[in-house]
Amino acid sequence: MNPPTISQVREAAERIAPLVHLTPVLTNKTINRLSGAVLFFKAENFQKVGAFKARGAVNAVFSLDDLDAKQGVATHSSGNHAAALAYAAGCRGVKAYVVMPENAPPVKKSAVADYGAEIIYCKPTQEAREETLARVVKETGAVFIHPYNDYRVIGGQATAALELLQQVSGLDAVVAPVGGGGLLSGTALAVKALNPGIKVFGAEPEMADDASRSLQAGQIIPVKNPATIADGLRTSLGELTFPIIQKHVTGILTVSEEAIISSMRLVWERMKIIIEPSAAVPLAAVISYKDIFVGSKTGLILSGGNVDLDSLPWSNADTHKLSNNP
Amino acid sequence: MNPPTISQVREAAERIAPLVHLTPVLTNKTINRLSGAVLFFKAENFQKVGAFKARGAVNAVFSLDDLDAKQGVATHSSGNHAAALAYAAGCRGVKAYVVMPENAPPVKKSAVADYGAEIIYCKPTQEAREETLARVVKETGAVFIHPYNDYRVIGGQATAALELLQQVSGLDAVVAPVGGGGLLSGTALAVKALNPGIKVFGAEPEMADDASRSLQAGQIIPVKNPATIADGLRTSLGELTFPIIQKHVTGILTVSEEAIISSMRLVWERMKIIIEPSAAVPLAAVISYKDIFVGSKTGLILSGGNVDLDSLPWSNADTHKLSNNP
Repeated sequence: MNPPTISQVREAAERIAPLVHLTPVLTNKTINRLSGAVLFFKAENFQKVGAFKARGAVNAVFSLDDLDAKQGVATHSSGNHAAALAYAAGCRGVKAYVVMPENAPPVKKSAVADYGAEIIYCKPTQEAREETLARVVKETGAVFIHPYNDYRVIGGQATAALELLQQVSGLDAVVAPVGGGGLLSGTALAVKALNPGIKVFGAEPEMADDASRSLQAGQIIPVKNPATIADGLRTSLGELTFPIIQKHVTGILTVSEEAIISSMRLVWERMKIIIEPSAAVPLAAVISYKDIFVGSKTGLILSGGNVDLDSLPWSNADTHKLSNNP
Repeated sequence: MNPPTISQVREAAERIAPLVHLTPVLTNKTINRLSGAVLFFKAENFQKVGAFKARGAVNAVFSLDDLDAKQGVATHSSGNHAAALAYAAGCRGVKAYVVMPENAPPVKKSAVADYGAEIIYCKPTQEAREETLARVVKETGAVFIHPYNDYRVIGGQATAALELLQQVSGLDAVVAPVGGGGLLSGTALAVKALNPGIKVFGAEPEMADDASRSLQAGQIIPVKNPATIADGLRTSLGELTFPIIQKHVTGILTVSEEAIISSMRLVWERMKIIIEPSAAVPLAAVISYKDIFVGSKTGLILSGGNVDLDSLPWSNADTHKLSNNP
């Protein structure tokens, strides 16, 4: 198989349209003034399940033929992909099996359960996750839908940038956060196919800088269990996402934890919308690398808005620790 | 002078249009399911200065003739009206004088100062406020713009409902929060003029139930320093707002502090937008008085989004106190 073409991305957009939101693009004068750029925020925090992940999961589940689909779908994740897959499976009327570490936060367990997925708990190790998933797939015949290393998922995530470019003309650059690389590779594919003159940047935490290192090294250099506050970006690039990013992305910009937290707070305070730490990483990059973006028209993908309101980064001890040890 | 007519409200809308946002109307399936109604949220949290108050202040300041305007405008407030008046004065290029108690939270002081107003501090008593304001007005010749007891302000606030009814057809009811009554009286005037069949409700905290008591008594019964979390609704009805509310409002619905906090949190979690406690009061009413709203199409005015992110109602000791003493 090859990476999705722009017509496949357009097909994905049509396929998922009835089940996902066409999210708005927001602007903010204060943040423009602060950054010296004109910024367009693609608000995927308003997306179904609260994150862009709904796009990839719905595209993947609705790309299956009936025979495969009726066996159900499975994944291992405790994050937005798990909720998205549960949502997508529910829409198609098939089962979703989600393998989750037994110590996952209750709020994540219930998010996935609320969408009707069957949760299979495992020990909190990578090995246990994979073994448990393999067993579930074997026992149920469910189709494994990887959170990012899957062209159907990448094609779905690409629809956010496709929409953004339909909503805003004249962009100089687009910045997406990068964890496993599903969103960034999809964004790069769509943007470069539509307008090769637009630069695409990935933004990631310094504490989880595997994409930056991997691009420099020319091969995937995983980062193990990074403790960044941007919990959606703790994963490392995959074999399918890496080459797309290598080919199409201008650069990876790494940002400090302080920059992530202050950008997140800036968006909350000024734009009055709730975004999760991972979604603040592109703005942190635009502010931290002002020279690159000053004077430009730049699109940023606000990847999601799922936050534990009982534990905000600026209200607990960790924040103080971080600000004391920059 | 008489209360604003619908043509005066339309004139106000035209007058303020270049300086305020046409705010979106949002919907949410989960909250619809929960309430048993179809709800339309007029998102004034996205308004300039983060609250509907920009409408009234801009209308008042731009209604002044040049001779009056050049003396500047003045008010006493530490809340959204102060920031709104500072914003409006800045737009017109005239001075704003804001009398504020010396113990006002730093975040409120800086919000007003950032919009370029001159702050005059006073002792934190109602007497000191009024005396200081009178002195400022006398010394500067500035025009006093009351936060709500002013027909120009009421006419400006009415434009939110005017817009809402242009954006959504077939509403059965509209619910607005009520503090001093500027928003509620404006909402009632606009809605009843456009469609007398639509019911208008005010929503207020049980702890600041002066509107409810006043309607029952047939005269203004002020509540003194109520400690409700809904800080925008601690004021009591005024002589201009009360008769309009008496005439046009179907009823005042009072809600508990717990209902306000849980409705606020529901909006944050499900709609991914930031609203202040006062803005959650209409939803708290729709949920608390389910029988009134079930099956209806109801518009709610989300009055503002200015929150101190360092002190959220569910993250401090007060919440626990409240939930232990319902």
